[in-house]
Amino acid sequence: MEPYKLTATEALAKFKDGSLTVEDYARSLLARIEKRDAAVKAWAYLDPDYVIKQAKKLDQIPQEKRGPLHGVAVAVKDVIYTKDMPTQYNSPIYEGDAPQVDAASIITLRHAGALILGKTTTTEFASTLYGGRTCNAHDSTRTPGGSSSGSGAAVGDFQAPIGLGTQTGGSTIRPGSFNGIYAFKPTWNSISREGQKIYSLLFDTLGLYARSVEDLQLLADVFSLEDDEPVEESFEIKGAKFALLKTTVWPQAGPGTIAAMELGAKLLRDHGAEVEEIELPSEFNEAPHFHHILLHSEGRVSFLPEYRTAKDKLNPFLVGHVDNIHKISRADQLKAFDGMAALRPKIDGIASKYAAILTPSVPDVAPVGLASTGSAAFNSVWTGLHTPVTNIPGFKGEADMPIGLSLVAPRYHDRHLLAVSKAVGKIFETEGGWKPKNI
Amino acid sequence: MEPYKLTATEALAKFKDGSLTVEDYARSLLARIEKRDAAVKAWAYLDPDYVIKQAKKLDQIPQEKRGPLHGVAVAVKDVIYTKDMPTQYNSPIYEGDAPQVDAASIITLRHAGALILGKTTTTEFASTLYGGRTCNAHDSTRTPGGSSSGSGAAVGDFQAPIGLGTQTGGSTIRPGSFNGIYAFKPTWNSISREGQKIYSLLFDTLGLYARSVEDLQLLADVFSLEDDEPVEESFEIKGAKFALLKTTVWPQAGPGTIAAMELGAKLLRDHGAEVEEIELPSEFNEAPHFHHILLHSEGRVSFLPEYRTAKDKLNPFLVGHVDNIHKISRADQLKAFDGMAALRPKIDGIASKYAAILTPSVPDVAPVGLASTGSAAFNSVWTGLHTPVTNIPGFKGEADMPIGLSLVAPRYHDRHLLAVSKAVGKIFETEGGWKPKNI
Repeated sequence: MEPYKLTATEALAKFKDGSLTVEDYARSLLARIEKRDAAVKAWAYLDPDYVIKQAKKLDQIPQEKRGPLHGVAVAVKDVIYTKDMPTQYNSPIYEGDAPQVDAASIITLRHAGALILGKTTTTEFASTLYGGRTCNAHDSTRTPGGSSSGSGAAVGDFQAPIGLGTQTGGSTIRPGSFNGIYAFKPTWNSISREGQKIYSLLFDTLGLYARSVEDLQLLADVFSLEDDEPVEESFEIKGAKFALLKTTVWPQAGPGTIAAMELGAKLLRDHGAEVEEIELPSEFNEAPHFHHILLHSEGRVSFLPEYRTAKDKLNPFLVGHVDNIHKISRADQLKAFDGMAALRPKIDGIASKYAAILTPSVPDVAPVGLASTGSAAFNSVWTGLHTPVTNIPGFKGEADMPIGLSLVAPRYHDRHLLAVSKAVGKIFETEGGWKPKNI
Repeated sequence: MEPYKLTATEALAKFKDGSLTVEDYARSLLARIEKRDAAVKAWAYLDPDYVIKQAKKLDQIPQEKRGPLHGVAVAVKDVIYTKDMPTQYNSPIYEGDAPQVDAASIITLRHAGALILGKTTTTEFASTLYGGRTCNAHDSTRTPGGSSSGSGAAVGDFQAPIGLGTQTGGSTIRPGSFNGIYAFKPTWNSISREGQKIYSLLFDTLGLYARSVEDLQLLADVFSLEDDEPVEESFEIKGAKFALLKTTVWPQAGPGTIAAMELGAKLLRDHGAEVEEIELPSEFNEAPHFHHILLHSEGRVSFLPEYRTAKDKLNPFLVGHVDNIHKISRADQLKAFDGMAALRPKIDGIASKYAAILTPSVPDVAPVGLASTGSAAFNSVWTGLHTPVTNIPGFKGEADMPIGLSLVAPRYHDRHLLAVSKAVGKIFETEGGWKPKNI
């Protein structure tokens, strides 16, 4: 197998047994990128020579001094500071800007031995739905989703085993589903967001992409994600109880998601799980509105500097935040802030009755066209509620495009959620009907 | 009057009428700093030549193109990024570090015409109570408080009219009281914290220092702080109703604070206000504990990168956060998170019945010795509740040292709080008994 096809866990095993060098691995990934870049365009910044130089340095580290991510290549969304590469946010205001500092996540990854490959495309400031040049890993006529467009597409296209994204609405989970990969939005503020551009302090969360749950578990180790309860090595689907939640935005679900939800529930039942369809209490109906109000209110604060210094170069959607075009009052904002806060322990209570909640990741497969990155309708409530969410790929929609489903657990049950995701993912990947053809 | 003595508002008037240049103003401040630095040691970084160069540039801007803070000198706490100066956090890990980026607050201030003077001392990462070399503006044997030690001391010592601080516990209000100046911690996330080192996402707030409330109002304009209700130009003390709140930590109050609270209430009554002593409902008794739990839990995330890369250079207090030495469970953390969230609308409800809540800023005057920056006991609950708070100077404690009192308003009543603070400040400054002698 060509090295670029490896998951992080598989590559690590080869580095360990000496059958692969980081340099050869990096060259394989770079060749893949070179071959596919015209079709996918996932990168905002990539310097192949620098990548090789870093890879060679990693190869020189003796086995006993290597970190848990030694040589693992990571694609970094271009809203996260990297001291040796520009950080440009897909904003003309920051074109060529290169603050010489690493984000907290990057410091931790580098210390663990990761090879930072380059910066991946994002919608402007990870804050709009307007697509850029990046294409879906499985169909160049379709959006990769956003705002973590490049990281989702790069991991989906085997150009990197691991990608960093962010999520404020649905910016990690949506590209995960659209590109047919695992995506993980951990509990809010369980990984430091230092050095990651602020849109909404209350919602922004670092997101992780991989092509296996083992890889996400490896990252969870590196970022010290810990639940209260020790998590079993291997989660048993048989006898487990899942909730099936269509949510109030179910009318937006297209045939791909409707079919995936049906098949997902059936597969879990076939494997001995109990699947109970639930509805959230009516007080949750306000959550999407709360999210909208808070996003605009927090964006009003976050984009003031750019508004003041370069309003003409700031997307009108974000100018509208600062101008408060919806005339959101402080009273409205506080009602949403406190209302969302009051819902969080309630969703924990509901979710804790189940192994996980199975719910849509997206309305359907990635839409045709690059102008819009799609809808976050099925994601924003979970972001607002701070719960961990994974996207589990495996289902097939229109035109053989991938479609995933979300699993949700109570806050700070991140490791539990990953254990469940691993078991569920095995089933969905094997029996869901979709396999990547770009390899 | 020598220019260094001017408030920002006074200096602006002179720049406008042409009676003072920014360069002459800067030279006056630099001379003051040179004269007093051995006694106060407020600066972590200051390059006088660079300051003069910037001042000259500002002088060249034609009147009609000048910003609302044209030429106003600002002392910046060294946990806030400045693209042209180092940012070192008083941490050996970041010694000499200089990311080339401005924090959101600095972008906004520079765009308004501010002259960034230099970086001021902080306790390590604004996260410990261990004092550094900086001394109180009014007595070199005493602490200036912390963690915004240098900004508090610099403004108190007429070395800068405006200072930026931060507050996670009592890091803005405490140095305000200890150095005899106005301090303002606005509503949480009402000013962008982008580029300000993270300790606790949930509590960290940019803080502002000045020697007049007019100056704070000027800054509030620049940062677009807006209440729902338009705020009257001049707040009338006569007929207003204040709450007097001793809090559950009142037993920690020393003679200075006890006397200030008595005199403060008397002065307000003398001027025709109604002052009603209140106690918070018993559910607020848990708030200090919630703050403690959350501070440690969020610090566990924030300092993971430094813990991983340079544990031996990280203060043991912060190592303890990452090691979770108090064995705080996720369940405890969520109980505190949700508990604090539930109290926020309740304190708004209580505070909205009054012009403001009058409550201690500190246990007493600045203690002798530099080893500890003092107690945040009277501040951390307000930080946790996200309410705006001001420190109003004017009272005199032991050894003629200054002591202030806090005013608190509901969230997003920042402009109201400043209007009230202006009226109250006029009384406390005139009749409270303390006047600065360092001028």
